[in-house]
Amino acid sequence: MPPTNPDERINQLGLTIPDPFPSFGSYVMAVIDGTTLYTSGHVPFDGTALITGKLGDDLSTEQGARAARLAALSLLATLRAELGHLSRVRQILHVTGTVNAAPHFVDHTAVIDGASDLLVDVFATRGQHARLAVGVNSLPADMALELQAVIALHPRNGEHDA
Amino acid sequence: MPPTNPDERINQLGLTIPDPFPSFGSYVMAVIDGTTLYTSGHVPFDGTALITGKLGDDLSTEQGARAARLAALSLLATLRAELGHLSRVRQILHVTGTVNAAPHFVDHTAVIDGASDLLVDVFATRGQHARLAVGVNSLPADMALELQAVIALHPRNGEHDA
Amino acid sequence: MPPTNPDERINQLGLTIPDPFPSFGSYVMAVIDGTTLYTSGHVPFDGTALITGKLGDDLSTEQGARAARLAALSLLATLRAELGHLSRVRQILHVTGTVNAAPHFVDHTAVIDGASDLLVDVFATRGQHARLAVGVNSLPADMALELQAVIALHPRNGEHDA
Repeated sequence: MPPTNPDERINQLGLTIPDPFPSFGSYVMAVIDGTTLYTSGHVPFDGTALITGKLGDDLSTEQGARAARLAALSLLATLRAELGHLSRVRQILHVTGTVNAAPHFVDHTAVIDGASDLLVDVFATRGQHARLAVGVNSLPADMALELQAVIALHPRNGEHDA
Repeated sequence: MPPTNPDERINQLGLTIPDPFPSFGSYVMAVIDGTTLYTSGHVPFDGTALITGKLGDDLSTEQGARAARLAALSLLATLRAELGHLSRVRQILHVTGTVNAAPHFVDHTAVIDGASDLLVDVFATRGQHARLAVGVNSLPADMALELQAVIALHPRNGEHDA
Repeated sequence: MPPTNPDERINQLGLTIPDPFPSFGSYVMAVIDGTTLYTSGHVPFDGTALITGKLGDDLSTEQGARAARLAALSLLATLRAELGHLSRVRQILHVTGTVNAAPHFVDHTAVIDGASDLLVDVFATRGQHARLAVGVNSLPADMALELQAVIALHPRNGEHDA
């Protein structure tokens, strides 16, 4: 049974949370409304470059799943920057994964699982989320995918309700 | 005036709710946060096979609307499995319909109406929802469409607030 | 520092809020759940015609940004019709922008900024939102884009909480 503290779990998994990736338009990376947090689309960045290209044309499903994992790490970076520590996450409620894909591509599930698996590894049952995974024909800067989430938080005062 | 009980309305309409369709990736079909329920993308399944293909290329608008109705029935199956009975639904808040479409397709509204009409038939005013309907160039397993929803619930204790 | 009253700000900016654009399917333009409002997809309408066509093929990025601004004005029209006045908006939480685009299009950010910039101009910090901007290969009636939002409201009784 994994530890319930996601920050410890990050260390246990040997993960490195990257620097938060900035907004590159007229939006912010996350907005909090009470105990609900809405994120912007998160992009796959390997520390040097964005992962770009279309699944089914330029990238394999395996490369796509790795890109999804990178986007999930970027999402964790935003959460840590917004919340201080990941243990304020009560539940990942919903994830939207948009895959930059060729019209014949059919393996979106395996691609976005690269992100979903990481969220469950880190948050255990609190990381189990509903999800919409779709293929789109283009994304900003030709990014391979985007990952957006709606997340329930524990109240700020530490009086965790569950 | 239709009965306000959606479970009775299902019978009155002669509808059969199918078995809940399982997740086929690292996600769950629905997550509840207080009195808000987020669903995953629901797919059109006729009891034997998924409805696949692209609107405008492989499927007519009428076939698409039928697929949307099947996806809405699958969404009802998830709701009944999660909630016990459909009368816990206070309001369908928002539906996202993603249509697997050829680039020249323009009748997404009529396609997704196949789902929306069913929700209003079953839930009456509680089924009237906001909606985003778009065309995408590919979907997992080449499914014809996906249907995702955000739904407000009555509290579990039966102390319905409206 | 801009005035905090968005209705005054509309006048100061010389903006004209159009008539609310009607639903053209089996959905409503907005649903309110407590202090959360979900909108449907809003479309670019210049008072005479919908802005149609694909970014990268039929429309320039500048034309797309203007279309996004028109869709944002239509969203404001829906909000004013639903809420009476725009000062009931506590925070724009999340915007989804779907751009009807050619597969090679990469400037979705600049297009949807046309909407986001307007929301920030009108609502100042209350207009700063999280966002998902993607390219889709088709939209209803070949519209250039759709704009959907989730918005936090002040309670109706005027006892504004912030």
